[in-house]
Amino acid sequence: MFSAILTVLLQVTAGASLAKMGAAIGAAIAAVGAGYGIGRIGSSAMEAIARQPEASGDIRSNMIVSAALIEGVCFFAVITCALVLFV
Amino acid sequence: MFSAILTVLLQVTAGASLAKMGAAIGAAIAAVGAGYGIGRIGSSAMEAIARQPEASGDIRSNMIVSAALIEGVCFFAVITCALVLFV
Amino acid sequence: MFSAILTVLLQVTAGASLAKMGAAIGAAIAAVGAGYGIGRIGSSAMEAIARQPEASGDIRSNMIVSAALIEGVCFFAVITCALVLFV
Repeated sequence: MFSAILTVLLQVTAGASLAKMGAAIGAAIAAVGAGYGIGRIGSSAMEAIARQPEASGDIRSNMIVSAALIEGVCFFAVITCALVLFV
Repeated sequence: MFSAILTVLLQVTAGASLAKMGAAIGAAIAAVGAGYGIGRIGSSAMEAIARQPEASGDIRSNMIVSAALIEGVCFFAVITCALVLFV
Repeated sequence: MFSAILTVLLQVTAGASLAKMGAAIGAAIAAVGAGYGIGRIGSSAMEAIARQPEASGDIRSNMIVSAALIEGVCFFAVITCALVLFV
């Protein structure tokens, strides 16, 4: 009887640590997605300004709009991963 | 009998933590999809504005429409993953 | 009875170390994402300044904005991974 309770406790802890591992790796993969997407947009924006410096205002506002869309999804994904630790 | 109930409880908990791991990794992969897709659209929009600065209004509105379509699907996927934690 | 307690302790430690492994690997993957993204932006900024030196002010401010967006997501992901160690 006592041993059974101990076994339950043990399994619960092992399961919780699996969820934590998933949360950490998930947050990392979401960060890679943001890095790839925003990196590509930023890199093209630099080249676009070098080619057409007088359009830099337009380029900057479009860069911020599209980067913010990626930022929104990725931040929400990282927050979902952080939520796994507390729920 | 008591031991059987404990075993059931233990299995339930172990299963729940596996589901949480899946939720975190799923949200991350959805974020990578959004980063890849919106990053590609934004990068082409920057180059397009540099090539034809007087068409920047048209390019911006089209960029926002197509990026919002990706955003919608990816956001819904991340919300589904967050829902796994509470259901 | 004593052996059961020892088994529980051992399993708890094994589970906790699995979570720590995930935290370490997650922090590393997030750092790779930041390195890729900010590296790409910085590299394009160098080439853009070399091509159009009189636009270097514009290029610098845009570079800082887009790199800061990547930095925000990746930093939060690394903090989530560090949080795994304490929760």
